[in-house]
Amino acid sequence: MQVILKNSAATGWGRTLGVLGGMGPLAGASFAYRLAQLTPARNDQEHIPVLLRNDPRIPDRSASRLSGGTDPLPAMLEGMRFLERAGVDCIAIPCNTAHLWFDALDSAVGVPVMHIVESVVEDLRRQGIQGGKIGIMGTAATLELGLYQRYLIAAGYEPLVPSQAEILACCVPAIFAVKANRIDAAFSPASQGITALERRGAQAVVLGCTELPLAVPHHRREEFGLVLTDSVDALALSVLERFNASEAVALEV
Amino acid sequence: MQVILKNSAATGWGRTLGVLGGMGPLAGASFAYRLAQLTPARNDQEHIPVLLRNDPRIPDRSASRLSGGTDPLPAMLEGMRFLERAGVDCIAIPCNTAHLWFDALDSAVGVPVMHIVESVVEDLRRQGIQGGKIGIMGTAATLELGLYQRYLIAAGYEPLVPSQAEILACCVPAIFAVKANRIDAAFSPASQGITALERRGAQAVVLGCTELPLAVPHHRREEFGLVLTDSVDALALSVLERFNASEAVALEV
Repeated sequence: MQVILKNSAATGWGRTLGVLGGMGPLAGASFAYRLAQLTPARNDQEHIPVLLRNDPRIPDRSASRLSGGTDPLPAMLEGMRFLERAGVDCIAIPCNTAHLWFDALDSAVGVPVMHIVESVVEDLRRQGIQGGKIGIMGTAATLELGLYQRYLIAAGYEPLVPSQAEILACCVPAIFAVKANRIDAAFSPASQGITALERRGAQAVVLGCTELPLAVPHHRREEFGLVLTDSVDALALSVLERFNASEAVALEV
Repeated sequence: MQVILKNSAATGWGRTLGVLGGMGPLAGASFAYRLAQLTPARNDQEHIPVLLRNDPRIPDRSASRLSGGTDPLPAMLEGMRFLERAGVDCIAIPCNTAHLWFDALDSAVGVPVMHIVESVVEDLRRQGIQGGKIGIMGTAATLELGLYQRYLIAAGYEPLVPSQAEILACCVPAIFAVKANRIDAAFSPASQGITALERRGAQAVVLGCTELPLAVPHHRREEFGLVLTDSVDALALSVLERFNASEAVALEV
């Protein structure tokens, strides 16, 4: 951990992170957990205040984009406006697929909104991956609608997407096992997906759905011969950097 | 898991749990995580909507009660009123020590507030412990001010409290290691405390501080020869039962 958070008791009071969660609920809670765990705090009071709206009633994002399911945007906008009214200073959305609606979510509020794909690209650099093929695991909607691809290309990487068969056999079952609280059943399909991307030359694989870091727990990540980028941790690290950086700016003024 | 939650898509829409968290932040996030994990849901939409106010700035509860530290009550009341204004239907407080102020917190809002000690007593029954000696691990304030003792006696148990030396050598270091994100360093003192209570005849030990379930992770609990009652899980199970029960009542009307 290279991030050094200044003592928020001295500088950070009143600065609160809003989290549009519930997509799914385990991923939302896990993001709050990992944010606390990655914070170099010595006691409660040095952590970042968080308001997590973990609303699992938001309609399924993939079903809406791929098979005409209910549009989740109104429920997501309601959540964003709730967080803004509650006085948060910045919003994070620990759901990759939700970022297909990023522009609408971002423009609905006056506070800054973190972008999870930008956080993942930052994390690739942090982990020393400067170029080459990057595998992407995610929901069918994230992959088919190209959420990651243009960001990776713009940053000088070559995106590698699972085949349609791999999406159905690896990504989707792993994600839905986590959503149904069958975490142990999620590792096998997820690891098959990672291995398939590794065989095709991936130097790193993005766990590009916030359920996937739960499918592939930290203590099993060394079983793979390549770098894994965890979109939950990447977003949390970006939040820590932003809160830190903003404090530094505030101190310089 | 015996709780069967009815499909919240059918019956639970709009019913939201408020969580006064941040005491500590890892415990607050962990409570939201365990609540989701213990919910028998098949997809996102069947989970309970949660609004977690994870505010780590609340002054230290133990320091206030035992050594004249800042009073945390105003900050806790602010959080309770915020959650009520946000429209939650029920509030859970995943911090045992905060329950030393329970009456003031409960009477400040018009919505029901769960009591973590009542949840733990329910959990002892759920785990088949009907009487006998119950060891209590917790913060110095929780133990010295007798938060658990009167509830256990009223329920027919005999409370066993660690000695002053054990509180300082086992409970306090385990709790503060978790709060400082040194979870691995928390197991050893916590397990020494449990073992000391076991030697004095405890049939079960209450992990009566919401940091302690993190100090003694689920996969290591079978190393002990007695029942452990986890105050985070107990509170989550009570919430599931309440939401379920209320739905049953609503359906019967």
